[in-house]
Amino acid sequence: MIVLGIDPGLSITGWGAVETTSRNDIRALQYGAILTKSAKPLIERLQIINSQLQQIINLYQPKAAAIEELFFLKEARSIAAIGQARGAILLTLSLNKIPLFEYNPRLVKTALTGYGSADKSQMQRMAQTLLKLKEIPRPDDAADALAIAVCHIHTSNNVFAKIAANEK
Amino acid sequence: MIVLGIDPGLSITGWGAVETTSRNDIRALQYGAILTKSAKPLIERLQIINSQLQQIINLYQPKAAAIEELFFLKEARSIAAIGQARGAILLTLSLNKIPLFEYNPRLVKTALTGYGSADKSQMQRMAQTLLKLKEIPRPDDAADALAIAVCHIHTSNNVFAKIAANEK
Repeated sequence: MIVLGIDPGLSITGWGAVETTSRNDIRALQYGAILTKSAKPLIERLQIINSQLQQIINLYQPKAAAIEELFFLKEARSIAAIGQARGAILLTLSLNKIPLFEYNPRLVKTALTGYGSADKSQMQRMAQTLLKLKEIPRPDDAADALAIAVCHIHTSNNVFAKIAANEK
Repeated sequence: MIVLGIDPGLSITGWGAVETTSRNDIRALQYGAILTKSAKPLIERLQIINSQLQQIINLYQPKAAAIEELFFLKEARSIAAIGQARGAILLTLSLNKIPLFEYNPRLVKTALTGYGSADKSQMQRMAQTLLKLKEIPRPDDAADALAIAVCHIHTSNNVFAKIAANEK
């Protein structure tokens, strides 16, 4: 089963496609970042996010998507930017009928590193270790997306039950 | 030419389809509100907004859409909700290749009532008067959407030039 992790943003949306057959067999297929330039009109930036995400979906056919819950620690302007990108991303997933799972950012950190206040470099190193990557995943946003996908696989009670059922 | 005015929100998105042949001939074809219940998952609410907006687009085939700029006076939670709804709405417009025009909320009020601090009931009455409606347009959100469409028709320098060019 392939899980697509997404770390949404208007300027940069991190993504990571992670494949799993069992709790101990989790590997990254690919990861990266969708970039949009702030000089472009908003509607064009949302369309770029949509079309690149659609290409990723077409390529990996994920069975689930995992994303962090939107949190409210940031300033209004950045929430507005993330919010609009997130709305376009969720609609793209919905139009592709991909089930969405949202996780609290602290839960993602706890699931991966054992504590909820891990910093970005700790998360990058943990994503590298868990996914046995040769290099530290960059940018941060792609590492976060991989982490969310791994968190979904680790925490979702039903993932392996579903895989087992499908394999029968 | 038909202009679709939109007042985005997650719980309620106002819309108004306005037809114009000249600056003095502007009429409302229809207006209303897309409602989503807060008990539903976010992704489902965005999908409802998308599918109802798609039906409106299919029915009226608007040549332009007008929307207020996102402003930052509200609290983080409401910006996050409006932002995500707005992202899904802009993506829907973009996928339908409908040109989008954004207006400052104060400009919309000034264009309709002559001053930038008009309240909701003044805007509703002005939309009623300008569009010669028998009733005050309700809810507020639909009246605001009609007002934004009228503002686009009044302020866009090129609208009538374009209509004239198309009619030749």
